[in-house]
Amino acid sequence: MNRSTNYGKFFRHPLTSLIQNSLLYPVQLYTIDKRLHFKLDREEQKMAHEDCIFCKIIDGDIPSAKVYEDDKVYAFLDISQVTKGHTLVIPKEHTKNIYETPPETAKELFSRIPVIANAIRDAYQPLGINLLNNNEPVAEQSVFHLHVHLIPRYGDGDGYTPNWITHTEDYTSDDLQAVAKAINEQIKH
Amino acid sequence: MNRSTNYGKFFRHPLTSLIQNSLLYPVQLYTIDKRLHFKLDREEQKMAHEDCIFCKIIDGDIPSAKVYEDDKVYAFLDISQVTKGHTLVIPKEHTKNIYETPPETAKELFSRIPVIANAIRDAYQPLGINLLNNNEPVAEQSVFHLHVHLIPRYGDGDGYTPNWITHTEDYTSDDLQAVAKAINEQIKH
Repeated sequence: MNRSTNYGKFFRHPLTSLIQNSLLYPVQLYTIDKRLHFKLDREEQKMAHEDCIFCKIIDGDIPSAKVYEDDKVYAFLDISQVTKGHTLVIPKEHTKNIYETPPETAKELFSRIPVIANAIRDAYQPLGINLLNNNEPVAEQSVFHLHVHLIPRYGDGDGYTPNWITHTEDYTSDDLQAVAKAINEQIKH
Repeated sequence: MNRSTNYGKFFRHPLTSLIQNSLLYPVQLYTIDKRLHFKLDREEQKMAHEDCIFCKIIDGDIPSAKVYEDDKVYAFLDISQVTKGHTLVIPKEHTKNIYETPPETAKELFSRIPVIANAIRDAYQPLGINLLNNNEPVAEQSVFHLHVHLIPRYGDGDGYTPNWITHTEDYTSDDLQAVAKAINEQIKH
């Protein structure tokens, strides 16, 4: 029996302990932490999906007035019918909001919108249409599964009025360039 | 000189005339009409492009506070700055509105929006963001080159308020199914 086998089997050499405490232990902790987070993420996703009213609509567990469906996208009437034909277009893959949406999901979702907008126009001859996507409660998001409102417009007082205050006078040309630069510097590909 | 050459050169046989009047002439007219329309479409397109303030911004003929640019998409600050960081995202290829946008252009345009929305969030920490796309004057479209407003939200009274009236009570479940069916029947792939 050599000494190293002895050390390995029955007790730790002080140096081994030192190495384990200073290096290996944090690595082990990190690994456990990552695994735990991965597990939590999966649980959270599963819960988000299970609790999500739009996922249930896609799965057919809650009825809807379906306008369109394919393998990636589902569209159905918003029961609030702000205007006649008011439609929600959603990706089948659960994503909370535009911030968390992968570019590929955004592509699939929005490539269907011209077709659906034209179908609404052909069915009800609105004079125009607003597309609206709200992200986070401050922006009026109430269901946390990305969705785009298609709101056909028939004239003033038809149910929808986007009110906005312009602040053109508050910004010089240099101010605008500074704001644009600040955003541009945060672009991440 | 044979008779057929004679006919062809100096006068038309009544049968030839009949054929030309009944068949060929409309075909010729149709061809001229198509050519004229094709020419007008091109002129209109050229004029649309020449008169389009957003095409001029893309070309650099009108200055802008640029937030993002690649080969397909251009993003810049809306000078009205409804809220700080209010950005317009447009396709480089001129298209009037969502109705006339080819799916491929919609894909390219919207696939960039998560990246730009996240950059606005990282730069100014808004509490949320609204995406808005207006089509036709009734829906507040004033520049006829497709554009998506990204309006970061900082709280009530920040400059943007989407007002809408719900009409849930006006529709039975059967009414909704009938509206959905009417739109679905107009889906054209």
